[in-house]
Amino acid sequence: MFLALDGVGDLQAQVLRALKQGIQDGRLAVGSRLPSTRDLATRLGVSRNTVIAAYESLCAEQFAVAKSGSGTRVAASPPRQQAAPAPPPVQAQSRYAGRVRSLPPVTLEKREEGLRWNLQYGEPMVDVAIFTIWRRALIHAAQHTGAHGAPAQGLMELRQQIADHLGKYRGIRCTAADVIIVNGTQQAIALAARILVDEGETVVLEEPHYQLATQAFTAHGAVVRHVPVDDEGIVVEAMPGKGVKLAYVTPSHQFPSGRVMSLPRRAAMLERAATQGFWILEDDYDGEFKFDGRPPSALHSLDESGRVLYIGTFTKTLLPSIRLGYIIAPEPLRRDLVKAKMLADMRCSAVEQAAVARLISTGAYVRHLKRATLELKKRRRALLAGLQAHCGALVQIDDSGGGMHLICWMPQLSYVHLNALIALATSRGLGLHAVEHHFTKQPRCPGLLMGFAALSVPQINAATAMLGECLADVVGDASSPP
Amino acid sequence: MFLALDGVGDLQAQVLRALKQGIQDGRLAVGSRLPSTRDLATRLGVSRNTVIAAYESLCAEQFAVAKSGSGTRVAASPPRQQAAPAPPPVQAQSRYAGRVRSLPPVTLEKREEGLRWNLQYGEPMVDVAIFTIWRRALIHAAQHTGAHGAPAQGLMELRQQIADHLGKYRGIRCTAADVIIVNGTQQAIALAARILVDEGETVVLEEPHYQLATQAFTAHGAVVRHVPVDDEGIVVEAMPGKGVKLAYVTPSHQFPSGRVMSLPRRAAMLERAATQGFWILEDDYDGEFKFDGRPPSALHSLDESGRVLYIGTFTKTLLPSIRLGYIIAPEPLRRDLVKAKMLADMRCSAVEQAAVARLISTGAYVRHLKRATLELKKRRRALLAGLQAHCGALVQIDDSGGGMHLICWMPQLSYVHLNALIALATSRGLGLHAVEHHFTKQPRCPGLLMGFAALSVPQINAATAMLGECLADVVGDASSPP
Repeated sequence: MFLALDGVGDLQAQVLRALKQGIQDGRLAVGSRLPSTRDLATRLGVSRNTVIAAYESLCAEQFAVAKSGSGTRVAASPPRQQAAPAPPPVQAQSRYAGRVRSLPPVTLEKREEGLRWNLQYGEPMVDVAIFTIWRRALIHAAQHTGAHGAPAQGLMELRQQIADHLGKYRGIRCTAADVIIVNGTQQAIALAARILVDEGETVVLEEPHYQLATQAFTAHGAVVRHVPVDDEGIVVEAMPGKGVKLAYVTPSHQFPSGRVMSLPRRAAMLERAATQGFWILEDDYDGEFKFDGRPPSALHSLDESGRVLYIGTFTKTLLPSIRLGYIIAPEPLRRDLVKAKMLADMRCSAVEQAAVARLISTGAYVRHLKRATLELKKRRRALLAGLQAHCGALVQIDDSGGGMHLICWMPQLSYVHLNALIALATSRGLGLHAVEHHFTKQPRCPGLLMGFAALSVPQINAATAMLGECLADVVGDASSPP
Repeated sequence: MFLALDGVGDLQAQVLRALKQGIQDGRLAVGSRLPSTRDLATRLGVSRNTVIAAYESLCAEQFAVAKSGSGTRVAASPPRQQAAPAPPPVQAQSRYAGRVRSLPPVTLEKREEGLRWNLQYGEPMVDVAIFTIWRRALIHAAQHTGAHGAPAQGLMELRQQIADHLGKYRGIRCTAADVIIVNGTQQAIALAARILVDEGETVVLEEPHYQLATQAFTAHGAVVRHVPVDDEGIVVEAMPGKGVKLAYVTPSHQFPSGRVMSLPRRAAMLERAATQGFWILEDDYDGEFKFDGRPPSALHSLDESGRVLYIGTFTKTLLPSIRLGYIIAPEPLRRDLVKAKMLADMRCSAVEQAAVARLISTGAYVRHLKRATLELKKRRRALLAGLQAHCGALVQIDDSGGGMHLICWMPQLSYVHLNALIALATSRGLGLHAVEHHFTKQPRCPGLLMGFAALSVPQINAATAMLGECLADVVGDASSPP
């Protein structure tokens, strides 16, 4: 128990005020026993007589009850003060706060509780195996990690493991010195923005886009230009001809369209960056999950001008609860980034870093990726088959051959239909998410962004059957007016 | 193994180039066996004949050696490309980066390796008990934390535990809704700066000061005004009369002077904030460690105008490897802070949050604080006694009655002496840290910032004896010219 004296007036009054305060705000619970007068006097550094007198006043004012033999207790219903009125709102205190307040809600973060099947993107694939493996690695790390924090740039053993892994599996030449550990993709974006972009400078993003990237750059004060994506990825020729400071792209598997940036586009993008002098932030968030053939070369591995910052994350490849990712930065930017990381939050969790390093070094990480890729492939196939079987001609699939999601367009539906569909599905325990939230302008045709990572094949079968039923009901309602 | 084809020219040339590249940059190690032609062909999605032809060229160019029965291996000394020259430096790409580059090194982060006794501030107290307790809590959390991340504002159970703890032990009335979990003090400072301060606005800091706070606000673009600290804490009357946007203070135990802000000063500070309309960032980084009498009331608990953001950390009270702290924010700022946290890095580690929540709820945290306070008290007493016994009249102690450090002034020494002393001590295995790094202007009198948390009482006895020897040698050298 803690009582703070406020130093105003005599000591007895101070002790009394502090006790009343403690009772009124519930820190001294109704019916609970107050400390002995001797004990409280020692703790507050006042005489015992002062406390005795304060307790007497407290009882007199009906805040407490003294019983011989059982000390003084807080009264069962002490007098109440009126609740303080809610403070008035204050205007945004910085331009950053002003921009933050004008941002729309992040729809991907919104999750319905208690759904039977959730086809929203963002739900992770959690097989029992990875959960057990991660837990074991974490326990090992907890037992072997010292009391000290990791360096700001990251734990050396994790940086080495990441460099080795990227060299072997993603064709990226780098050493531990090139790797900066961060708390996931979001921090990578925020740090890159700080060291590369001033308020009012232009950042190019893809359209459709990843909400949290758009929001981070907008809040940062950048002028965000969304450039459309076609079958070959971002349309490089549609980028502004000058004044671009940074382009944020997801070439392995564009989010959310699923498109893979073609090699000619990659070359064009790199050439533009070199010529115009802008930076590329390459988010390879699920480059590890390609089903058909080899994953495309990362922009970073094709870059000869040192213009690409490559970012990766373990949140998507392992578990959402893991807050770790990394930046492979061109040498001239590295110190700026490490210092920005230090000033942002000093360093990442040492235990999580050690645990991920262990997963990679023991080979468990690669085995998990292989297993996860196979399983994701099965789930995607089940989703495609289910959509085909139950929704048939009403849906049109944007098939990208990888990752954890696809877009399901519904060209015959209006947005009124779509909203009715989502509401109906939710009421029947099926979570759906409209893809329009990832476009700056509502697409002509309504569609769903479907994540297939979180559901097993039987669950996907049931979920698509349910989707078919809901769809039939919504379309039926629409075609037969009341 | 990963080989990226670059898409230029015919497939065989592409495969050959990719193999050579892999050998030259070491991804295909000297002497290692290349994959079978069948295997590689499948992985690259090319015909087996293409791979066979590429392997033949590889051997012809002496990059590899084919042996019948053992496949093709990388040559023992493959031809070398010249190493790429280091890229030229680039100028700072944002005003933030420019400011970051102009910052001095953070001296507290610099640590000498292999010292026998380290009296530098920043070394933690690590007793075996807390290490075991923390590890156990972490293992429990790893076994009970789901795959999902925590909410951006923080795990509800941790926020509740913190609110309860602060109510009981620090006199702070708050509920879980008021608590925002962050990655420690540094992130609390960075987020507060983002939502409260624009470039060019004035932030008041104490002098002497905490380096990383000064650097964070400077990098952020604030105009930093250092205001002197006297025996009662920051001299409120010396603050600028207007134009202050935020004041960052450490009232419980000023860093590094150790001064406790007096109650009249607290009142004056709060009144000024209310009148002038600035915000107070109250860093209670070691408010839990007070030795003599009760800890002073937090500014937050005295604040009636909703101007105080209170920040605390578990890094100092538990272990440096733990990246968790919290902000208790006035209601009107809370949404801005949570959104800023989300855009900065989404959320904190769920496992660490669950582990700390468990430590608090089981009572282990409070027991640890009590034990640690007792032990720190002993260590401080040993340091004071050792300095008295071995350095006697040469030192003058700034005694603050709390925390983990004190300042030891050496009025008879020059800075030349002090530097010689630090160098000599380091050579004999004793780590010392000059306090001048925490002043904007070098103090007239040289001194040491001494952390006493990391050494046991016997170690402190030995360390102070060694300090006495070094001091005698340095002063002796100075008084007897060669």
